[in-house]
Amino acid sequence: MVASQGSDAALPSSSSPGRPFDDPVYRAAVIDLLGAVGYGEISAFERLTADGRMAPTLEDKVALQGMASAQYLKIGPIVTRLGELGVEAYAVMEPFREAFDSFHAHTAPADWWESLVKAYVGDGLANDFYREIAGFLDTDTRDLVLSTLEDTGRSEFVVGRVRRGIEVEPRIGGRLALWGRRLMGEAVTQAQHVAAEREGIAELLGGGRVEGLDLGTVADMFTRITHRHIERMGRLGLAH
Amino acid sequence: MVASQGSDAALPSSSSPGRPFDDPVYRAAVIDLLGAVGYGEISAFERLTADGRMAPTLEDKVALQGMASAQYLKIGPIVTRLGELGVEAYAVMEPFREAFDSFHAHTAPADWWESLVKAYVGDGLANDFYREIAGFLDTDTRDLVLSTLEDTGRSEFVVGRVRRGIEVEPRIGGRLALWGRRLMGEAVTQAQHVAAEREGIAELLGGGRVEGLDLGTVADMFTRITHRHIERMGRLGLAH
Repeated sequence: MVASQGSDAALPSSSSPGRPFDDPVYRAAVIDLLGAVGYGEISAFERLTADGRMAPTLEDKVALQGMASAQYLKIGPIVTRLGELGVEAYAVMEPFREAFDSFHAHTAPADWWESLVKAYVGDGLANDFYREIAGFLDTDTRDLVLSTLEDTGRSEFVVGRVRRGIEVEPRIGGRLALWGRRLMGEAVTQAQHVAAEREGIAELLGGGRVEGLDLGTVADMFTRITHRHIERMGRLGLAH
Repeated sequence: MVASQGSDAALPSSSSPGRPFDDPVYRAAVIDLLGAVGYGEISAFERLTADGRMAPTLEDKVALQGMASAQYLKIGPIVTRLGELGVEAYAVMEPFREAFDSFHAHTAPADWWESLVKAYVGDGLANDFYREIAGFLDTDTRDLVLSTLEDTGRSEFVVGRVRRGIEVEPRIGGRLALWGRRLMGEAVTQAQHVAAEREGIAELLGGGRVEGLDLGTVADMFTRITHRHIERMGRLGLAH
């Protein structure tokens, strides 16, 4: 399982789940992370639904609505957890609006095919990132973050749709391959902005604050995420 | 309970739920009705999410996303039931796209207040109509239609929001009262178009096909729906 790729020694002891929160930097970073995940779900809901307007069939539209609804179900637990940590959940999400909204503004799909690929690639990238990071967090936070990854089989319908689309109209393949690269590029750009602006997250990722998590680990993590993106593009029948 | 306002004698016997489907006109009307309900849910999902873009706070946006997700959960059972009746669910919904899309195109909210009132009034009108009609249907269809009415407490958050909005800015009250009337007017107009174009539904509503359901009953039903709309406007603090 990917989440345990960090060595077990790197994980805060599960017998004292409250302990890491005594460190104010760790606490701030987890709050930021949950805020980012929360706003990510909200904006994904909005984008998936808007993209569904381009769906060629009602069935396709409803499939994207299903992906959006799956995002919604994950917002509640994050809001609850942020409340338990003593912060106002929606206020914590605000600083991440700009990065997510920029990502979506720069990756507005031009047609249904681009919408489909974005839904699949975006979902996949977000899940990979959360799964990687979860392995380094305290038990409660890890379980919460991993729970947001469930039900993602919903996006698998995209694979069949895109492959059949390319069969029928082979020329879209080249354009969608470029599109996938652009999605990855924009995601990395926005993630870098967030890391630069939010000290807690930067400290968590590269500050040696959590045992086993340093800039080298983050580089490895990034390499794995990139590989998995390429695999996903391959499943769609697209060259990276 | 409103659903039982039709006399019990008017209900097809629950001991033979398959019987009314031997009548091809009844069967066609139920298929049409479920198609209309299904597409209504899909289009409401899209509109609630789009209107949520005008939400002044993330919490308000998520509240509309919650209303949208509640619509999504109702689509599955309708698709399943239409499949059991031997028809392709999404094909059955197609003829209703124009009426619902016209309704939404003619009632595009100009701001967040109009979005809120539309979410509440639209949800309420749809529920009242389905509840009224359900009382005249066979047990299986009735249970299915009534199940689409659950969870509508979600829209109750609107009442507090709108009342507080009018307290802060009393001049919006007059505009929203007019808006509520327009929503009702557009809903009635589109419902009449549907009834005129879909013979099965017209026959069901006024053709004496179901015992106890004739044009007089439909007029009474309409009067009750109008009264409940006025009550709803009153709860929002708006004059009808």
